[in-house]
Amino acid sequence: MKKYIAEFIGTATLVLFGCGAAVLAGAQVGQLGIAFAFGLSIVAMAYAIGPISGCHINPAVTIGALVSNRITVQDAIPYIIAQCLGAIVGATILYLIASGSPDFILANGLGHNGYGEGYQGQYNLMAAALFETIATFIFVFVILGSTHEQALNKFAGLAIGFTLVLIHIVGIHVTGVSVNPARSLGPALFNGHALAQLWVFIVFPILGGVLAGLVYKLKLIYNT
Amino acid sequence: MKKYIAEFIGTATLVLFGCGAAVLAGAQVGQLGIAFAFGLSIVAMAYAIGPISGCHINPAVTIGALVSNRITVQDAIPYIIAQCLGAIVGATILYLIASGSPDFILANGLGHNGYGEGYQGQYNLMAAALFETIATFIFVFVILGSTHEQALNKFAGLAIGFTLVLIHIVGIHVTGVSVNPARSLGPALFNGHALAQLWVFIVFPILGGVLAGLVYKLKLIYNT
Amino acid sequence: MKKYIAEFIGTATLVLFGCGAAVLAGAQVGQLGIAFAFGLSIVAMAYAIGPISGCHINPAVTIGALVSNRITVQDAIPYIIAQCLGAIVGATILYLIASGSPDFILANGLGHNGYGEGYQGQYNLMAAALFETIATFIFVFVILGSTHEQALNKFAGLAIGFTLVLIHIVGIHVTGVSVNPARSLGPALFNGHALAQLWVFIVFPILGGVLAGLVYKLKLIYNT
Amino acid sequence: MKKYIAEFIGTATLVLFGCGAAVLAGAQVGQLGIAFAFGLSIVAMAYAIGPISGCHINPAVTIGALVSNRITVQDAIPYIIAQCLGAIVGATILYLIASGSPDFILANGLGHNGYGEGYQGQYNLMAAALFETIATFIFVFVILGSTHEQALNKFAGLAIGFTLVLIHIVGIHVTGVSVNPARSLGPALFNGHALAQLWVFIVFPILGGVLAGLVYKLKLIYNT
Repeated sequence: MKKYIAEFIGTATLVLFGCGAAVLAGAQVGQLGIAFAFGLSIVAMAYAIGPISGCHINPAVTIGALVSNRITVQDAIPYIIAQCLGAIVGATILYLIASGSPDFILANGLGHNGYGEGYQGQYNLMAAALFETIATFIFVFVILGSTHEQALNKFAGLAIGFTLVLIHIVGIHVTGVSVNPARSLGPALFNGHALAQLWVFIVFPILGGVLAGLVYKLKLIYNT
Repeated sequence: MKKYIAEFIGTATLVLFGCGAAVLAGAQVGQLGIAFAFGLSIVAMAYAIGPISGCHINPAVTIGALVSNRITVQDAIPYIIAQCLGAIVGATILYLIASGSPDFILANGLGHNGYGEGYQGQYNLMAAALFETIATFIFVFVILGSTHEQALNKFAGLAIGFTLVLIHIVGIHVTGVSVNPARSLGPALFNGHALAQLWVFIVFPILGGVLAGLVYKLKLIYNT
Repeated sequence: MKKYIAEFIGTATLVLFGCGAAVLAGAQVGQLGIAFAFGLSIVAMAYAIGPISGCHINPAVTIGALVSNRITVQDAIPYIIAQCLGAIVGATILYLIASGSPDFILANGLGHNGYGEGYQGQYNLMAAALFETIATFIFVFVILGSTHEQALNKFAGLAIGFTLVLIHIVGIHVTGVSVNPARSLGPALFNGHALAQLWVFIVFPILGGVLAGLVYKLKLIYNT
Repeated sequence: MKKYIAEFIGTATLVLFGCGAAVLAGAQVGQLGIAFAFGLSIVAMAYAIGPISGCHINPAVTIGALVSNRITVQDAIPYIIAQCLGAIVGATILYLIASGSPDFILANGLGHNGYGEGYQGQYNLMAAALFETIATFIFVFVILGSTHEQALNKFAGLAIGFTLVLIHIVGIHVTGVSVNPARSLGPALFNGHALAQLWVFIVFPILGGVLAGLVYKLKLIYNT
């Protein structure tokens, strides 16, 4: 149960602070600031809850870990449930804080992902899908590599967090960066347009996570 | 006594450099720069004085540590006194430096916290209280988790410092970010409006610290 | 073979995300954001593939390692081939994503390096050559020093990545920063002007790498 | 001799890349970018040459180490000479690169320190002296603390580098931040006004370094 509580708190923190940077401070800190907020949320949680749950806080990571035999199905399912619940609670707390400002406009969303007309750089579906697949592949590739038993070390939390900073620097203007279906779910519940596009941010991050899991399953990089 | 001197110097540095970034360089480095200044002050002090005092430099952290039995009451009280004195000295040194510029206007404050009309994004009291409580909860949660005996490692200083960067990225536009009653006390002594709102930045950070302490006291995440 | 796959994926990631920050997000994140993207790509890959291939992902690094007897010629050649192929694939994926935006203009390039009229600060060839030589020297000097057997530690990945952040902060306005012939090759294939200047970003980074290799070969700093 | 070569290369790198960020890229990366450039120069060198010379690359650090009995006078003198020579060479290389741009104006300096009319925020001498003394005190306090035998760990390079980032975030608008007489010397040789103010950036950083050395000499924080 402790593992699931840890995943719940971790994912809630990622959504509250990552999306919170966009909603509460985006105009002040810019996309670089938002990128650091997402990545440093991972750093924070990796060292706080990593020893308990491994700090997945992302269904695509859990699925990548499942494919590469790092977690059992019996654990993966409650992990994903806890992550989705955490993301919803994180987005709800963000809504409560954000709505305390006279400038808050709910129609602008709570840091949801998207693509196409009216969203960031207006990238088309093909580009959004390709970016999310590749970015999640690299993200989960770094996670599974830096925590591999041949590499295992406490630097993984920093390396993984900085990888998420990196991915957000590159991709906020493309899709807002999901690479995490739970992170997309939370804010989408507050925005109809985002909800209609949510499938993209479930399907392609999972595809990327599965591909990264296969690299380790097939022992393309590490021997074990 | 060495521990209290360490807490004094550490908190003075946090206020001088964290608030100093806002006062001396805010227009040049932006809120992202200020966020890094607060967090990197923690990184600096964690590795300089951490082995001596644990580098709390924050009464909410000391109280969270007290609730989770990491410090005795006999130590907690002089810790908090040293932190408050350090914050006052840090703010005073900042005043002396800042007043050496022809552009300095004391009425703009010395990096004080606040909420409501005329302060940053003009968030209401409910939002300010919620942000400070949750942000302090997460901050102290990361501190107590990353320094837990099951997790104990020298990465804690980086993880905690980057968590404070994160919290400031998200919250400077909300309350200026306290999560630390001593940090709020120092600059408030130089600004009447901030002094009238100071109770918010004492009560809610302490509430967040107590809640985080309870998570560990009740063994919700770690077994011990 | 695993080593070469690792170098391939690593270099593709460096080009996709480093150049991707410039192409997809340059106007949003600025040169500081681009600098972090290049450097954090190294951090990500250092901890993911470092235990397998050493994470050179740069022919100038491989040649510096060769000069200082850290790698054999038999390994260096396939390393460099894998790096060049990875860079081309990284640039191609970047092209596919970038072309999904209505604002994409191929003539602006895919994050290529350059110098002279019309490129960034319009530095002349002498300045570009000097910058690339010295910057690559320092980069490879840090790599060979921080991974030296007298210094060997897992901090090298962070130190090296942050060194590349540093070099990009200083040099994007000068040459766009190569210090890596493979990184220059990928985007140059999509831009005729960049292709004509490519030799500069092959010759001088290699010169810098050789000079750094000689420092260790000649035991100017370390005894062994 | 290896130690002195290391100090020479390290200080040249600090000046070339730290001041280089200001001169070559200041308008693009802002003061936050310049702050990272100075601090990450320390991170780079700490892991590259730290095992050899301790990576002082700053006379105020060497003097602080001398006061706290971490280095002998016989070593301190050639350290300081190597640092000053390195700073001059670093500034000269920067001049050669910078002058390759059609926009370069030597009268704007090469990243020199200063105070008073026409320099940054136009802080008076009292404020400049106080900032340099306190900032160097904190810098050397962190260096001597994080490398103390009771604390000794490989995190020191990161902690010290990030401390220099922090100090630059706060102080570039005040004095350009010296905290290092060698760093001030190099660019001052290219600017008459800076040369006339150079004494401030020799005297007060040394004063700060001596004060920090005394904290450890007098065992105010650590027992040994």
